[in-house]
Amino acid sequence: MNTVRVAVTGAAGQIGYALLFRIASGQMFGPNTKVDLNLLELEQALPALEGVKMELDDCAFPLLNSVTMTADLNVAFKDVDWALLVGSVPRKDGMERADLLKINGGIFIKQGKAIADNAKDDVKVLVVGNPCNTNAWICHKAAKGGIKDNNIFAMTMLDQNRAHTQIAQKAGVPVSEVKKLAIWGNHSSSMVPDFANAMIGNKRLTDTIADEAWLKGAFFETVQKRGAAIIKARGASSAASAANAVVDTVRNLTNPTAEGDFFSVATLSKGDYGIKKDLLFSFPIRSNGKAWEIVQGVEHNDFLSSKVKATEAELVSERSDVAALVQ
Amino acid sequence: MNTVRVAVTGAAGQIGYALLFRIASGQMFGPNTKVDLNLLELEQALPALEGVKMELDDCAFPLLNSVTMTADLNVAFKDVDWALLVGSVPRKDGMERADLLKINGGIFIKQGKAIADNAKDDVKVLVVGNPCNTNAWICHKAAKGGIKDNNIFAMTMLDQNRAHTQIAQKAGVPVSEVKKLAIWGNHSSSMVPDFANAMIGNKRLTDTIADEAWLKGAFFETVQKRGAAIIKARGASSAASAANAVVDTVRNLTNPTAEGDFFSVATLSKGDYGIKKDLLFSFPIRSNGKAWEIVQGVEHNDFLSSKVKATEAELVSERSDVAALVQ
Repeated sequence: MNTVRVAVTGAAGQIGYALLFRIASGQMFGPNTKVDLNLLELEQALPALEGVKMELDDCAFPLLNSVTMTADLNVAFKDVDWALLVGSVPRKDGMERADLLKINGGIFIKQGKAIADNAKDDVKVLVVGNPCNTNAWICHKAAKGGIKDNNIFAMTMLDQNRAHTQIAQKAGVPVSEVKKLAIWGNHSSSMVPDFANAMIGNKRLTDTIADEAWLKGAFFETVQKRGAAIIKARGASSAASAANAVVDTVRNLTNPTAEGDFFSVATLSKGDYGIKKDLLFSFPIRSNGKAWEIVQGVEHNDFLSSKVKATEAELVSERSDVAALVQ
Repeated sequence: MNTVRVAVTGAAGQIGYALLFRIASGQMFGPNTKVDLNLLELEQALPALEGVKMELDDCAFPLLNSVTMTADLNVAFKDVDWALLVGSVPRKDGMERADLLKINGGIFIKQGKAIADNAKDDVKVLVVGNPCNTNAWICHKAAKGGIKDNNIFAMTMLDQNRAHTQIAQKAGVPVSEVKKLAIWGNHSSSMVPDFANAMIGNKRLTDTIADEAWLKGAFFETVQKRGAAIIKARGASSAASAANAVVDTVRNLTNPTAEGDFFSVATLSKGDYGIKKDLLFSFPIRSNGKAWEIVQGVEHNDFLSSKVKATEAELVSERSDVAALVQ
């Protein structure tokens, strides 16, 4: 039986709490892989994390090999195969976006360095904590080659899942019928859910949903602003659905993608689709279970093209806000 | 593909929130069964439940067929195959145990009647909300034959999982090595974790852990009082681990039990092991995937025998506190 060592940051937070039990139950790495969990929290959250560990113990998960709790980055990332960077500082009232980027930049610089110093050479890093694309960019940059270019990711799978369900409900079909619905760009309100290239069953999505005003309007807006709608309804931000998207992302990257489909994750741009290099940009991706590639040949109409340019511009702007931190 | 309809009460609560995503992801009924979720909440919790449903939508679970939200018992239990009764009124400061039993009795009488009136004939009912054994007894009684005697359960799997890990940690073995560790009696601090008949690998537990003072003392107490320890550490009661035990219980009942093992769940006593009839009492159970039976021939030494008598006496006392409610 294989063993995989996984670091989770912000482990005692709401997403962490929803995520750890799904990992430990075997849903992320499958029924034949044991898991060592390295859980990172701030010093003051370690007592609460101890309670989470007690609950993990109380599940008697056969696949959970060990649980390490720490506030020390060097311990947290020691020998890990995966680093799931869930924790970040949320935006508070009155905080400017540039300030938010810089505060989180400081966190992710430290984490990038500690990953480079401690993790396995082939460590994969998935950033969930927002602003996740730029946090991932700064983490990768700070690692100075210690995180391979193909191994840094930021999560847009929650957006893809949200888009799938909105489309399935509109079309009156099961969600499993919706395929090839990519999220392009930044995990922010500028993200681009690509309805034009998506399929419902064997037909183009736009053959089934002809209501272009809805696709360009309510659909776009619902997916882009879903996070805020959840907070309004629940009185708390998305936790279980975000955790589920983390499980999906790792599974998507580590298992062969189904024929005739792809999935979304932000990766380091090398210029595909004319996107500026060195941005963490969400593309349609396929995996063979060991390596992934950007799906080629997807075409954008004028509407989507302008949206993709806008999300690219936002990422360029975010990058320039934090670039000085990693000089 | 099969479809199973499952009611979950207290669906917007902490255990509900941890449970729903594990059910919808396929962990309870397997990868070939679609799930219709009927979610029951108090009227005032329906807006929060709407937020939970939005997050379920945002997971795009292929196996989640439908989600119904309601405060109406008749809607909640309509045509269900399983009723997972998670919600109950927790004990508050200054509340007497008899009062707690009566308040919850009122809830579970209504639910028992609504299950009898609306659910499928072969509906299985698992009570999680505490005091779960006596809540289950009153629910079954109120159903007046509408819940078959073999189909009413109260959850002691969380206790079993807790016991497994305590033993595994003491013995320094993986939890999967611990077998046949039954919980007898009431899910309360009188529960009896039966170390004397348990196995570690191919040996009796007591051959590996010879420290009888620990088994009868710290081990017993840790398992019996674990709930309070979790609250102290987390600042909140067990949620994810309780939800996990619900998943385990349903899986245990609906899949063949592994050779040389059994599991714990409270069922309606028919007098096995000299336990008074008509109590919801936790026994060691085996399933063939369709039907279950109480494992016979387990022997109790004097220590365990007296503990089993004490937990039986507690259940008799709880029953007499609520019996008048269902006359």
